[in-house]
Amino acid sequence: MIETSEELYERCSKTKQASKRLGYLDTKTKNKALENIAQDLIEKKDAIISANKIDLEKATSSGMSPAMLDRLVLNEERLRAMSQDTLAVASLPDPVGEFFDVRTLPNGLIAGKKRVPLGVIAAIYESRPNVTIDVISLCLKSGNSTILRGGSEAINSNLALATLAREAISQAGIDEDNIQFIENTDRALVNKLLKMSDIIDLVIPRGGAGLIRFVKENATMPVITGGIGVCHTYVDKLADIDKAVAIAYNAKVQRPTVCNALDTLIVHKDIANDYLPAIARKWAEAGVEMRCDPTALEILKPIKGIKVIPTMPDDWGKEFLALVAAIKVVFSLDEAITHIERYGSGHSEAIVTEDYAAAKRFLNEVDAACVYVNASTRFTDGGQLGLGAEIGISTQKMHARGPMGLRELTSYKWIILGSGQIRP
Amino acid sequence: MIETSEELYERCSKTKQASKRLGYLDTKTKNKALENIAQDLIEKKDAIISANKIDLEKATSSGMSPAMLDRLVLNEERLRAMSQDTLAVASLPDPVGEFFDVRTLPNGLIAGKKRVPLGVIAAIYESRPNVTIDVISLCLKSGNSTILRGGSEAINSNLALATLAREAISQAGIDEDNIQFIENTDRALVNKLLKMSDIIDLVIPRGGAGLIRFVKENATMPVITGGIGVCHTYVDKLADIDKAVAIAYNAKVQRPTVCNALDTLIVHKDIANDYLPAIARKWAEAGVEMRCDPTALEILKPIKGIKVIPTMPDDWGKEFLALVAAIKVVFSLDEAITHIERYGSGHSEAIVTEDYAAAKRFLNEVDAACVYVNASTRFTDGGQLGLGAEIGISTQKMHARGPMGLRELTSYKWIILGSGQIRP
Repeated sequence: MIETSEELYERCSKTKQASKRLGYLDTKTKNKALENIAQDLIEKKDAIISANKIDLEKATSSGMSPAMLDRLVLNEERLRAMSQDTLAVASLPDPVGEFFDVRTLPNGLIAGKKRVPLGVIAAIYESRPNVTIDVISLCLKSGNSTILRGGSEAINSNLALATLAREAISQAGIDEDNIQFIENTDRALVNKLLKMSDIIDLVIPRGGAGLIRFVKENATMPVITGGIGVCHTYVDKLADIDKAVAIAYNAKVQRPTVCNALDTLIVHKDIANDYLPAIARKWAEAGVEMRCDPTALEILKPIKGIKVIPTMPDDWGKEFLALVAAIKVVFSLDEAITHIERYGSGHSEAIVTEDYAAAKRFLNEVDAACVYVNASTRFTDGGQLGLGAEIGISTQKMHARGPMGLRELTSYKWIILGSGQIRP
Repeated sequence: MIETSEELYERCSKTKQASKRLGYLDTKTKNKALENIAQDLIEKKDAIISANKIDLEKATSSGMSPAMLDRLVLNEERLRAMSQDTLAVASLPDPVGEFFDVRTLPNGLIAGKKRVPLGVIAAIYESRPNVTIDVISLCLKSGNSTILRGGSEAINSNLALATLAREAISQAGIDEDNIQFIENTDRALVNKLLKMSDIIDLVIPRGGAGLIRFVKENATMPVITGGIGVCHTYVDKLADIDKAVAIAYNAKVQRPTVCNALDTLIVHKDIANDYLPAIARKWAEAGVEMRCDPTALEILKPIKGIKVIPTMPDDWGKEFLALVAAIKVVFSLDEAITHIERYGSGHSEAIVTEDYAAAKRFLNEVDAACVYVNASTRFTDGGQLGLGAEIGISTQKMHARGPMGLRELTSYKWIILGSGQIRP
């Protein structure tokens, strides 16, 4: 057990050292290690489930909510799903070693870029223990070493999973120090970790807004943040009403607790009288609480069977993560874009329209990780957009934006092949 | 003149606001603005040269060294070069709006990435006033707005150049607030600037190690650092001696004051007796001070006309920026790689060899922005590697590594085109 910051540094130094070899390890060995992890998640399920039981008992006796408790549970079914996810990562193409932008220069030099891992990635996360295996498998496949620091509520589960993974990669001939689990959940040690910029190349916080802010403010190395999505769907005056109903319904109702779900529906005045009752009926059936601006309220209030309330002061720009939607009526595309610019979090924004010029302007002028025409914002997801898997969704502009898959966990180095060239 | 941090914030907010429009401005208008700047650098030369005179007089009376004074000078010839550089940037392809990784997904969604500017880039730099126009033209072409804070020694020159550029872009119909020059050089205001992460998307420090460290430690937004190059050239046992002499000579002598110049020469024991005298004769003629490890000293000391001294304790890992080289003899490629791993700064590293396997291992295992086989490290430069221009050389792994051209000053957004798709 790590007790002091010196011990922490020493342990993480081992990971840095090990990462150098992992950086250019062949794909076959990395896949073998992933397959070992997948197999052990099935074969060693009893040990994992017992460790999880300890966390669950502690959580229950400390009065954790049923929803939170559910996120903590590891059972046979969930372990099987984790095992399958790990195999899925093994089956993805290895991004490391890919060559790109290669050209022969006039002087005969061949210059290009070769994809390489970032090095050591630290993940600081809360509650769900499956994140442990998620991060390990994505980092391993992309040639990165991992330092994991999970929350205290899942400490026994996380430790059991990390130990399993260390053994599994070791069986494949990979140094187990490429996976480092910080079993001491003292927050002061997190702060020390965030100052080790000589060891850690990237930190990824996964959890609530408080954790993300803490990491961002204290880390001395790059941080990829994201996951906070204040998402708008704008129904233009020339929208197809059926599409617009299906899209807004899906974006709000299909899974309301996630970052790419709809928060605010913006509707053009010219279509509001036809469109708003149609979507409101469907949303009402699904139990969506509708918080309306005065114009939307005026349209919807008289309709039988639909319950609407006025917007509250901070509803614009709020991520509801629940069956709640704010509704705003605008007089122009400009007004919609300005609203999104002011209140959006740069995550996912959609327009529904059959008007080519409106679609083009929206795509051009809205500044977000993912900008949609005529589709649900729920597609902002590495799996859905063809990346195979994702470690998170970045709302930053540097390095990677939007869903981050394996390739987004890499850097590159320039390779320059000469035959004696010197600079004139 | 900005006096308070509120005034600073207000002024920079204007730049943020203006940057939104600049982000999707057509290439033609941006090029017209660059051409205006190029033209004004010629036509308004008298005003610039007078402003520069004030800086030069102050610098002379404060006892600035001749080398530093020379870097500060703006004359007709230098203004003409700056004008031509600006036209060269105008002639480069516009990275903004480029589509890449576009594919049609099984559900019919067309998903891909569109290149967009980063937004607002702040440059904090020292001494050379041409940096002002350099940064402005590269940022403008890549659709980014610029906040400039140059050193106090060049304040009058910088202010005159920034004012010229603001007028020139305004003549092309671009909001002049896309260029913001902070004319108050009070260091406390720099600190305020580095906390404005809601306005500034990226900071680029250009100057000495002290400035870079200060920016890195205090900035709350991403920083691209680099420019510190401890560069090694390793002459393998199977090197072609003529090539190895030409390469090491060029890497050390052609321009010793820059970051991609050779600092340490590493030579395999088996070739040292033949190679070291050959390179040492050439270096001696050029006045290179050679600091040798005991083995190299033993080989070179007896040779007439060559003056060598023992290495000093911190010579490994030192960026000399002068006609000085450290020389080390190794017994294996492994020893060379380990030395580079320990002392390199991840900038530019070269091997000279005719052995395919050694070249392959070096390329694989050496972790640096640019890794060379049989060429001079002096090619680490945006112009030399085909980028057209560069804003700096990154030794980081996140976002961009190595020479940073226009494309490296951009991000992307995902564009998803649907026809009513919803997530099942």
